[in-house]
Amino acid sequence: MAKASSSLSYESLAVGIDIGGTGTKYGIVDRNGNVLFSGEMSTRGHAQVEDFIDELYNNLIVLIDKAGGSGRMRGIGVGAPNGNFYSGTVEYAPNLPWKGIIPLANLIQAKFQLPTVLTNDANAAAIGEMMYGAAKGMKDFIMITLGTGVGSGIVANGKLIYGHDGFAGELGHTTVIPGGRYHEGTGKKGSLESYASATGVKLTAIEMLEKSPEGTSLLADTPKDKLDSRSVYDAAIKGDKLAKEIFDFTGNILGLALANFVMFSSPEAIILFGGLTKAGDLILKPTRESMEDNLIQVFQNKVKILISHLKESDAAILGASALAWDIKS
Amino acid sequence: MAKASSSLSYESLAVGIDIGGTGTKYGIVDRNGNVLFSGEMSTRGHAQVEDFIDELYNNLIVLIDKAGGSGRMRGIGVGAPNGNFYSGTVEYAPNLPWKGIIPLANLIQAKFQLPTVLTNDANAAAIGEMMYGAAKGMKDFIMITLGTGVGSGIVANGKLIYGHDGFAGELGHTTVIPGGRYHEGTGKKGSLESYASATGVKLTAIEMLEKSPEGTSLLADTPKDKLDSRSVYDAAIKGDKLAKEIFDFTGNILGLALANFVMFSSPEAIILFGGLTKAGDLILKPTRESMEDNLIQVFQNKVKILISHLKESDAAILGASALAWDIKS
Repeated sequence: MAKASSSLSYESLAVGIDIGGTGTKYGIVDRNGNVLFSGEMSTRGHAQVEDFIDELYNNLIVLIDKAGGSGRMRGIGVGAPNGNFYSGTVEYAPNLPWKGIIPLANLIQAKFQLPTVLTNDANAAAIGEMMYGAAKGMKDFIMITLGTGVGSGIVANGKLIYGHDGFAGELGHTTVIPGGRYHEGTGKKGSLESYASATGVKLTAIEMLEKSPEGTSLLADTPKDKLDSRSVYDAAIKGDKLAKEIFDFTGNILGLALANFVMFSSPEAIILFGGLTKAGDLILKPTRESMEDNLIQVFQNKVKILISHLKESDAAILGASALAWDIKS
Repeated sequence: MAKASSSLSYESLAVGIDIGGTGTKYGIVDRNGNVLFSGEMSTRGHAQVEDFIDELYNNLIVLIDKAGGSGRMRGIGVGAPNGNFYSGTVEYAPNLPWKGIIPLANLIQAKFQLPTVLTNDANAAAIGEMMYGAAKGMKDFIMITLGTGVGSGIVANGKLIYGHDGFAGELGHTTVIPGGRYHEGTGKKGSLESYASATGVKLTAIEMLEKSPEGTSLLADTPKDKLDSRSVYDAAIKGDKLAKEIFDFTGNILGLALANFVMFSSPEAIILFGGLTKAGDLILKPTRESMEDNLIQVFQNKVKILISHLKESDAAILGASALAWDIKS
């Protein structure tokens, strides 16, 4: 027994790094999903990706040493927007400062001298949910992140779907309303992201305010740049009718999209994560109703819509670190 | 060498059964996808499913005996509409004579005394394509059958996606045009099947004919019940403008749906099968163009649209028989 416990204290750990458009979070995680040490830095202010990695190394090596040194680290898992699992590259990420195709996994591996695996941020979140979160024990689920954009990670047969090129799971860019709202980033019309993202909710609020008679909504007093799911939520719980309509409209479109996803991979659950989910039933109720309305009978009343319950600051690190456990040693 | 060849002649064989709304095809297949013996019977005219299985048995046992007897059969694979891989049941199949939930795999297994696996017809077709057809060697592809209805089988990470309940891959029922054409069978509006099936093409032809001035299309002389992708094709190759517009319209919607599927699972190829594909470039060109138009950049010019090249009569049997090879002996 003493032996087992002593070997446990030397069990492998993993490094998780989540690179976002604004900030980068990192941490040291054990097999049970405990974040032992963690930190955060700005992603911006490094014109060269090498400078960013130098700063990341200087910050992280302190934590790695505290946790027993590099020898205890099984590897490094990285989640990043437009990250490709197969090539370890980040490709044409509109929200990152480095343009073109960046061999991020190789650069990090060379600097840290630790095996490094990379995937996109939503895939990392899905893996985190599967190992430690709402999808624990599930073999078929879909993770949707409703943030600045709409990201997704899809798990079927217990495995993440990467597709033939590593780019599968771009559900935010699927068309829900053909000919619908224009998406600045992609030039496409009517995508899920153009409605169900933070930007989408803001645009819906602006559009609906313009159409409604003056003085009928609390939101009319909110400056346009402060119109977000938070301010719409605040108005809705005060009974504002227009604010509720904004959530109904958004939930309707989200539910229609979810129904299509269900008829694709028939998941046990859809896990939602991100700012919009904080509106609770205001967004979930119309989403659920619209999903059920658009499902054919055989799928109805079967699929759970769950909200991620991982701590937001940990979820990203956990998800990224979880990648490292699959590294073949 | 002589020994190997003698053992080869006693290699296992598999029975493939494809149950369709009208006819049922069956055959004995070897590991290399050669259909050694095959036959066909009507699915209709058996009010009780047990009577159907009795006739199927009487027909098939002759072929099984010719092929060396039941002892050589690894098992039976069955493809059927609304077939569920996990439960071996056929559930509420609108196009089959037997209503409710039918434990078809168990019934067939009991009658033939051979291990039996069942899945839906489009999934069986996908497995057939993966083992012997256009998807040979692919780990990520989508099979779409464009027949009376629109069926689909999705393969990711080299495995068919069944979903948590065995019903995944109902892409024909995904909504492409919200609020669009009503689908009699499901009561839903704007599904892919309501446009890209045989019935869908017929309805499009009728709608377009009603809107076009008299005497401007060859199709005006075709009785309504003869309007199908064949007659539209015949008119189109004679230069009929309306006939071409019917294919353009259908291809536009199909391509939009395919783009959404690509952004889900990023397949190497989409394999199309069924009557509509016989229109060749008339339907493929607008489909490809619309798919590319609706894809975000990272997916563009990457995904092949292929036509199944399996012999139509064999494909279904091959696909069903292929299921049997995975039966654990």
